[in-house]
Amino acid sequence: MIQIAIMGLGTVGTGVAKVVAENARQIERKLGEPLQVKTILVRHFKDGPYRQLMTDDFTRIEEDDAIRVVVETIGGVEAAYEYTKRALNAGKHVVTANKQLVAEKGCELLALAKKRGVNYLFEASVGGGIPVLHPLTQCMAANRIDEVYGILNGTTNYILTRMVRAGATFADALREAQEKGYAEADPTADVEGIDAGRKICILADLAFGRQVDPAAVPMEGISRLSLDDVRIAQRAGYRIKLLGRALRLGSGRTAYVAPHLVPEDHPLANVEDVFNAVVVKGNATGEVMFYGRGAGEMPTASACVADVMEALQASPRREEIGWEADPEGFVAPQTVPLRHYFRIRGSLADAVGAFGQVEVLSEDSGMTAFLTEPVSGGEAAEKAAALAVLARLPVLG
Amino acid sequence: MIQIAIMGLGTVGTGVAKVVAENARQIERKLGEPLQVKTILVRHFKDGPYRQLMTDDFTRIEEDDAIRVVVETIGGVEAAYEYTKRALNAGKHVVTANKQLVAEKGCELLALAKKRGVNYLFEASVGGGIPVLHPLTQCMAANRIDEVYGILNGTTNYILTRMVRAGATFADALREAQEKGYAEADPTADVEGIDAGRKICILADLAFGRQVDPAAVPMEGISRLSLDDVRIAQRAGYRIKLLGRALRLGSGRTAYVAPHLVPEDHPLANVEDVFNAVVVKGNATGEVMFYGRGAGEMPTASACVADVMEALQASPRREEIGWEADPEGFVAPQTVPLRHYFRIRGSLADAVGAFGQVEVLSEDSGMTAFLTEPVSGGEAAEKAAALAVLARLPVLG
Repeated sequence: MIQIAIMGLGTVGTGVAKVVAENARQIERKLGEPLQVKTILVRHFKDGPYRQLMTDDFTRIEEDDAIRVVVETIGGVEAAYEYTKRALNAGKHVVTANKQLVAEKGCELLALAKKRGVNYLFEASVGGGIPVLHPLTQCMAANRIDEVYGILNGTTNYILTRMVRAGATFADALREAQEKGYAEADPTADVEGIDAGRKICILADLAFGRQVDPAAVPMEGISRLSLDDVRIAQRAGYRIKLLGRALRLGSGRTAYVAPHLVPEDHPLANVEDVFNAVVVKGNATGEVMFYGRGAGEMPTASACVADVMEALQASPRREEIGWEADPEGFVAPQTVPLRHYFRIRGSLADAVGAFGQVEVLSEDSGMTAFLTEPVSGGEAAEKAAALAVLARLPVLG
Repeated sequence: MIQIAIMGLGTVGTGVAKVVAENARQIERKLGEPLQVKTILVRHFKDGPYRQLMTDDFTRIEEDDAIRVVVETIGGVEAAYEYTKRALNAGKHVVTANKQLVAEKGCELLALAKKRGVNYLFEASVGGGIPVLHPLTQCMAANRIDEVYGILNGTTNYILTRMVRAGATFADALREAQEKGYAEADPTADVEGIDAGRKICILADLAFGRQVDPAAVPMEGISRLSLDDVRIAQRAGYRIKLLGRALRLGSGRTAYVAPHLVPEDHPLANVEDVFNAVVVKGNATGEVMFYGRGAGEMPTASACVADVMEALQASPRREEIGWEADPEGFVAPQTVPLRHYFRIRGSLADAVGAFGQVEVLSEDSGMTAFLTEPVSGGEAAEKAAALAVLARLPVLG
């Protein structure tokens, strides 16, 4: 019998308890012995099936040598950070779905786990139940990873899908997402690209082996996206998708989040509704894509439980999951040459005057939409300085 | 310095030597020490960069205690089987891309590896460089896997893509694939579904934990596929794709390979050219898809090298990769209820007379194409016995 603890009993924490119970047979077959949730840390006691497991005293977990793995589903940094450190210091493996904590403190927590000879695993923090981090670090270990990009947030992808398919405005599509339970009452972290930003930081950390500080990563969401641009892009053979991107640049690296024009024959263009997809580009493997539901109680929880099993089986610990601090190596994404989409109040002549050669997508009622040749973000801003810019988006590929 | 051997110096074997050299820095960073190819087993000596590593004497590998991992890229069963057994018996980890050997003898070789306390790993045998087997067994370990299906063969997917896009016949598209180097001079294993069949057996073995004998798995290829059916399917909103499928059926399981009608909004419908994609359905995670180039020298080789690294790091061995023999649990796929596509010489009245309710897709020059309600393969054959059947294909979903 292997005993574990769960910290936090929200959606994911409850899911972890359910997966351990419902898939007990599969789990026991793989582990060789049964897995049991012994203790659940909560702030407020609630009635329900797990009432007798609950405690509001963290030392009941910290000082219990029978508990070998702790699943942290508290979220945020403060308490989660504190308890994670204490659990690792107590010699317990820690598994989490907490992308904010991993993005901000992962480097330090991984170093602590290494020092204590235990695992700190977080497959569920990116892509929910879609296997991404292990395949990236393990199955593609013989590659130099050159780029990672993808649709990392299901809420915004649902909103964008409704804007394309139903011609809904951002505000209407957001309301619909909230009614369906896909968006929270305060949707800021989703729609402003912060959630996707934390995930692209974790992907960049693992892909390049160096810490990317979320505070340095430009994150642009979809709240200011106009239906005009969605329609113009679609007629020109593109879909607008919110992408997180991380690129290797010589010995440096960059990362950012922004809505992009994605060519309709690119696999990401067909990823719709709440689905996520992550593309990893290795120098030997080429591009591979991982696709599925990026959130939800049971998918995310099952990824946590798989990490619990992995933590127990990988003895003493998985060495290849980790990264180093390196604040110097981060390059601002404005230096990367990309094609840009512009919509301006003005004529094609104005566009050509600013950018030289452009590909015109639409000219209508005094507005012109066009694509530039590849230019850095800085150069694009400079050239567009004299234009009346209504929208500007990078183009994938 | 960790030393390995390669057996066989064809496409994949050469790729393994290249990946070890080209990505030496990445590999060393993850392993903590350099990786070196010490010995390469060949049948005939050839000049080239690896000339000084070659031997035609297997005992030079078997008796060399410095060699910790052997990469088998000989292919086929006989010599590959013999040398794999001897290498495992000599206490060496074995890594392979040999799908025929794993599908036919995997159960026995995994048991031998377990007995000897070493790893037998074969990520590269399915999906080339696309991570599939490790994510299935490890990241989805907390799921009950209910189904695995996908486009497992790039050659046939290229041919089907040309039939859809260019209206090429099977024969012309095959010739084109051969000219481009995507199909071999003898394309039988690809176009008759045997290659996909071996891969779906391996996926079923891992997903359900029980051996599926390739000899029991019906494998139908695309060589008899008519352009008429490709066109009718496309106009009705379907793409024809060669799928391998493995399903859990109560306590039993089934597997088969056949061309299917795939609805155009299904993610597999947009997988084109030589790309592969595998969908895994877990009871907690739902459907996830893995997509990329399913073959080729460098992708397949990089998957082998990642397994070499995994074999060295997973000490003493990965317990969760394995399956048991169970010849009783395999159920013929003819019992699974599926919608079927039929094209008959006859009228809609004939179709309705045989099947009751049908969905008509086309009626033209005395031919009728239609979809049935879900019926087992056996029942479909029985009901169609009196019809002049020109084509019959299962429908996905």
